[in-house]
Formats: sequence, structure tokens, C-alpha cells
Amino acid sequence: MSSQSPKGKVAAPSDSEVLAKLESLAKKLVEQMESGVPPYLVIPVRTMANTIWDRKRKLLVLGPKTARREFFDIGESKRFMQTVLMLSLIVQARREGDYPTIRELYYRGKRTIKYTDERGNKASEETWDDQRESNAVIQDIEVATGLLREHMGVTHDAKGRIVGNMIIRSKGDEIDLSKMGSGAWGIPSFVDKIEILRVEADYVLVVEKGAVFEKLNEEEFWKKNNCILVTGKGQPDRSTRRMVRRLWEEFGLPVYILTDGDSYGFYIYSVYRSGSISLSYESERLATPEARFLGVSPSDIERYELQGFTIKATERDLKRAKELMNYPWFKESKRWMEELELFLEKKEKVEIEAFAKHGLKYLSSEYIPKKIKNKQWII
Amino acid sequence: MSSQSPKGKVAAPSDSEVLAKLESLAKKLVEQMESGVPPYLVIPVRTMANTIWDRKRKLLVLGPKTARREFFDIGESKRFMQTVLMLSLIVQARREGDYPTIRELYYRGKRTIKYTDERGNKASEETWDDQRESNAVIQDIEVATGLLREHMGVTHDAKGRIVGNMIIRSKGDEIDLSKMGSGAWGIPSFVDKIEILRVEADYVLVVEKGAVFEKLNEEEFWKKNNCILVTGKGQPDRSTRRMVRRLWEEFGLPVYILTDGDSYGFYIYSVYRSGSISLSYESERLATPEARFLGVSPSDIERYELQGFTIKATERDLKRAKELMNYPWFKESKRWMEELELFLEKKEKVEIEAFAKHGLKYLSSEYIPKKIKNKQWII
Repeated sequence: MSSQSPKGKVAAPSDSEVLAKLESLAKKLVEQMESGVPPYLVIPVRTMANTIWDRKRKLLVLGPKTARREFFDIGESKRFMQTVLMLSLIVQARREGDYPTIRELYYRGKRTIKYTDERGNKASEETWDDQRESNAVIQDIEVATGLLREHMGVTHDAKGRIVGNMIIRSKGDEIDLSKMGSGAWGIPSFVDKIEILRVEADYVLVVEKGAVFEKLNEEEFWKKNNCILVTGKGQPDRSTRRMVRRLWEEFGLPVYILTDGDSYGFYIYSVYRSGSISLSYESERLATPEARFLGVSPSDIERYELQGFTIKATERDLKRAKELMNYPWFKESKRWMEELELFLEKKEKVEIEAFAKHGLKYLSSEYIPKKIKNKQWII
Repeated sequence: MSSQSPKGKVAAPSDSEVLAKLESLAKKLVEQMESGVPPYLVIPVRTMANTIWDRKRKLLVLGPKTARREFFDIGESKRFMQTVLMLSLIVQARREGDYPTIRELYYRGKRTIKYTDERGNKASEETWDDQRESNAVIQDIEVATGLLREHMGVTHDAKGRIVGNMIIRSKGDEIDLSKMGSGAWGIPSFVDKIEILRVEADYVLVVEKGAVFEKLNEEEFWKKNNCILVTGKGQPDRSTRRMVRRLWEEFGLPVYILTDGDSYGFYIYSVYRSGSISLSYESERLATPEARFLGVSPSDIERYELQGFTIKATERDLKRAKELMNYPWFKESKRWMEELELFLEKKEKVEIEAFAKHGLKYLSSEYIPKKIKNKQWII
């Protein structure tokens, strides 16, 4: 991976760098074959057992364990073939300037291989049976090359929205994110290809809920409070996380996460901050280890007199909260443990919208700015 | 409702018009009380029995049936109270320039009313027990006033994205939707407040899937094919539908809908085109009765040699398809009935991404442009 990009500049490797990395993986195989070595790939292991909590960097990262995937090992040859097939599809897409979705890559590589087996019988094998198999080898290629699939031009259903005092350049267009009217800029799949030309804001406010984003945007919260307003619409996608990370990393902006006061919301904060177990190899690029949880916290229920405006937690909520208490980044935070214990004790969750009890401007005029001013976030 | 707005201009009633309409509803109640008449509201009935298929206009619309909601009818007094409560919340929000979500209106109006009952016992009643009750009275106010909740400043989680050769004005910002880089303009809740200044495009292409939108946008499909590209990300929200409708109504652009080839996709087309039963009172503003279904149709499976690239339809898919065959706007279309019968016969669904079988550019270079050129859409 290329070293840290200069502030705000395009953070992605160029198309030719990407192609070179992918091709070099394939070239190794050719060299092995030419020198008579049974072909193999070395792939970092993406299991939970090889996922490490890096306390210093406050990130979930992939451990050092790798596996050799041998072509001549009968148990691995199919996965080997799938990896090489996917590699060829992605290389071809990059050479031809295509931007496939992961679902398209599945269909593009799907076919029946017919062959004669060791007993002379006709047999056939599907390249892959479902998308889980093709997705898994995309991830293998990501970890083997150190490239994200976004660098390889693979698109996804990008959900995020952003608005605020910042100017970016994307595909040659200079876009002023403070001039989006009632709307917002829809964050695309490839955030690393964006040049961030200028940011004039005091902080980034990430709101879980799309409807709350709409309300705050319509109220021009970001203008009145000089912040960048972002939503990932629930569990954020990779590009929303990457955008938030870049604003923190390259511009040093504090990042505040505002979710519902329930296990699901706490987990969304956790993903923004530390990464997810299934994508731990991407945390270094996607996580924002200094993100702060602004609310809604279980202790806010009493502090803001929201009793009677809560929802009974389900068994699933409580189970999830107990799981969170075992995550090191929660476990090592005294404040978080207090909040999670309170959640388990009271068995009540509370939504962002509940502040409407105190008036429709309370959230934007009181709760958010005062919590930030009084440093009442949790980390 | 004010008459047809001039081409592209702001299509919404002004804030003062909205306020006047809402207040006049309340004033009627005051006049009734002052003249000694037991207060009542006249509300159009939003049941399926009062939903009519307007064959001429090709729209689902609300029928003529209305109901009197009487304050002194013990069975209706709670709903009467809820309606008046919601009316007061919305009037207050408009007077103070607030943009609540429907969830906030629920919380804003939620409280316990304590009273002494007819036997002298202390009793209490919740204003509403859950959001279904508060949402229902918002809809009542919509049909009673002829205003959409968007006109009343109520926000929702807006999902849609749009990009293409058009310039709009929103909140004073002039926004060029052909200069969004890799991203797109996120369509906000209040589409009627947008001025559409200029549209230079041959048609509107609405794609169901967000990931396919990303791919086509990255490929600059809209630039190469001079169209406006829109996604509602699955089942579209009200504002995406409104935007598509405005482009058709005010600029006369043909609208093509591209979905997966399954009952869910066909229903999405149906909602864009004819409206939904639960929101039939809004069809006149949200539906695009001349929208054309571009694909993927069941007969495309053979035509484009996608056999083996399909997915087995579930019982639910088949049940849904049978239901669609009873909708008049499908029933009255010979082509649609053929396609739905083929779907039920073959029991196979097919995704947009399956065209990747023929190459990653096939969808954008062959399927979409040729289907349009050869007029192979279905209506």
C-alpha cells in the first residue's frame, strides 16, 4: 500500500498501480509453474481467531497468520481455481475500465466446467454455487494484495450522504458540499478517488438515521454549527466509513456519532470507531479510532427526563449488549461499561427522536451543541 | 390544490398557503363549537374499498366516500382528539419553521391525559399508544386538506439519488446535476420546493438497485446516452417518485423502469407507474402513469440466453405474481399478462446483474440502449 497520502489528496493507488499489484499476484503463479513448483497462493487468514484488537492504534486488525492455498491439494484446488478466476475477472475489468458490482462478478464468473474424472467418467463442476463463494475470494484478493475492492473498481450500493462547508474534486468536477440545497451529496463507492480540496468545519457529526439527517439538513444545522453532517443510514457502508475516516485523519476533525440509545446504535458507533470483525483487514482505512459517541446513552434517559418515552428492550437487545461488553474497546472504557450496565439494568432503549418531547428544536439547539460544548461524549 | 404549476417551477404551495389550509380546518371546528354544533371533521375514507382505478388517467385514486368524525361519538372521540392534536403539532411546526420526522411528531404528541370518569373515578388515557395511530391521523390530515405531508414540512428518510444533464435550484443554490463527480445528488424529502431550471435529456432511466446505479454512474451512462439516471434503492420513497413524476409531467420525458425480473421488481414498476393502494390519495402527485417497464422481463431469459443464470422463484414470489395479475393495470395489458403467465410457468426469476454473463458492458452498451431504441418496453 502506498504511504499516507498528503492531506486531502486522492488517497487511492492509481489504476496502473492497482493493475500492477493484481498482475504481480498472477505472475507469481506463472513463475511457480514455469519453475516446476506446484502453484500456490499465500493468503492472510480472515478468521476471528486471526483478528486482533490493536490496543495502541485502537483498531481491529488482521493478525499475522497466513495460509498457503495449493493447487494440487484436492481440498483446496476449487478455492484456488475460484481465486484465480476472480483475479482474472478483476484484472480484465480494470484493463477495460469496467465498474462491476460484486453481484456482477459472481454472474460473470459463473459457469459449468465439464471434465472427465480419474475413472474416465464425464463429470461437471460449477465455478461457484452462490455469491458467498465469489465474495469470499474477492476478500482473499483484497487481503493478499492489500488493495480494497473499491481500488479494484468494484461498486456497491452506496448509502451515505454528506453536506457541509467543504469542497471536493471528483472526476474533474469541483463540488461545493455547502451548495446542495435541501439535498446532499450522495457518497459514491470510490471515496479514495476523491480529492478533498478544502474543509472549513469544527467537527463531523455522523447521524445514524436518514430521517434525522434530513431534518437537521433542512434546519441547516451544519451551517449554524459549522460542522460536516453525514449519515450512513443505519449500519454504514464502506464508503461512508471511509469518508468519515478521511475527514478525521487528513483534517484532524473530531468525529461525533449520534445513534439511537440501543445495542444496535452502540454497535454502529463501534463499527465507525473500531471496525467490524468480518472486515477487520479494512479497519486501517475505514475505522476512526478517535470517534466519540455523542448519544443517545442510557444515562440520558434520566438526565433528559425521557422516562415514559422509552421502548422496552427485547431479549435480543440485551443479548447484544452483553456481547458488546466483551469487546475490548468497550471493556476498557469505564464509562461505556457503566452505560451498558445501566442498559441491562433498566432494560429500556430510547430513540433520537424522543427529544421531541421537549420541542422540535431541542435536539439541534440544545442536546447536540451542549453535549459537545460540555464534552459529555463517551469514548 | 393549486392548479398545475408552470414547467419546472416550484410545485409546492407556499408555507403561508399551507398554514392557511391547516388553520382553516381548525377554524371550522371553532365555528361549529361557537354556533353550538357538536364538532366534527369530514375525512375522505382511506380504505381499499374507497380506492379506485381511474382507467382514463391510469391512476389509483381515492374514491368519493367520506366519513364524519364526531367529537361526541364515544367510538370516535379519541381519534377526533388525535386528529386535532396532530393538527396543532403540525401548525405549530409550520409557524416555527420546524421540520419534524413522523417519528418526532409521535413523540411530540405523546402524553398521558388524566381525567375523572363519569363515575367519579380517576382514569387516564394515552394520546396514542404507538406510531401507527399518529401516522394514521397525519394521513387523515393529508386527505382532508389535500396537502401532502411534505408540504407540511414533515421529513422522511429520503433514499433516492439522481444525476444527469439538469440544473435545479433548491434553497437558493443552483445545482448542476451533471457535475456531481462519482457521486450523485441525494434527493431530499421536499421535492416540490425544488425549481427545475433546465433539463437536457432524452429520457429518464430509473434503476431499482443502488449498486447498479453506482456502476452506471461510474461508467457515465447518463452522459453517453443523454439521460437522467435515478435510483429509488428498491421500493422507492415518496420523494423519488415525486421527482420522476415531475420530470415526466413538466418536461415530457419518457420514463423507463429497470428492475430485477421478479414479482418484487414488477411491483416496484407498478408503484412508480400507478401508485400504491395504501397511498392512493397521493397518486396524482407521485405516480407516472406513462412509465414504461424496460426489463428485466421473464421473456428476456430466453431472448438474452440467461438460462442457468436465473434463481428459482419462491412460493411467495409466485403468490405475489398472481396478485399482480389481478391489478387492473396489469390485467388490461396483454403483454404484461403474457409475461406474468410465463413467470408462473417457468418459476424463474432473473437479476439485472445476470447480463454480466455477456460481459460487464453488456447492460449499458447493449441491453438498455437497444431495448429503448427497438421500443421493447412493456406497458
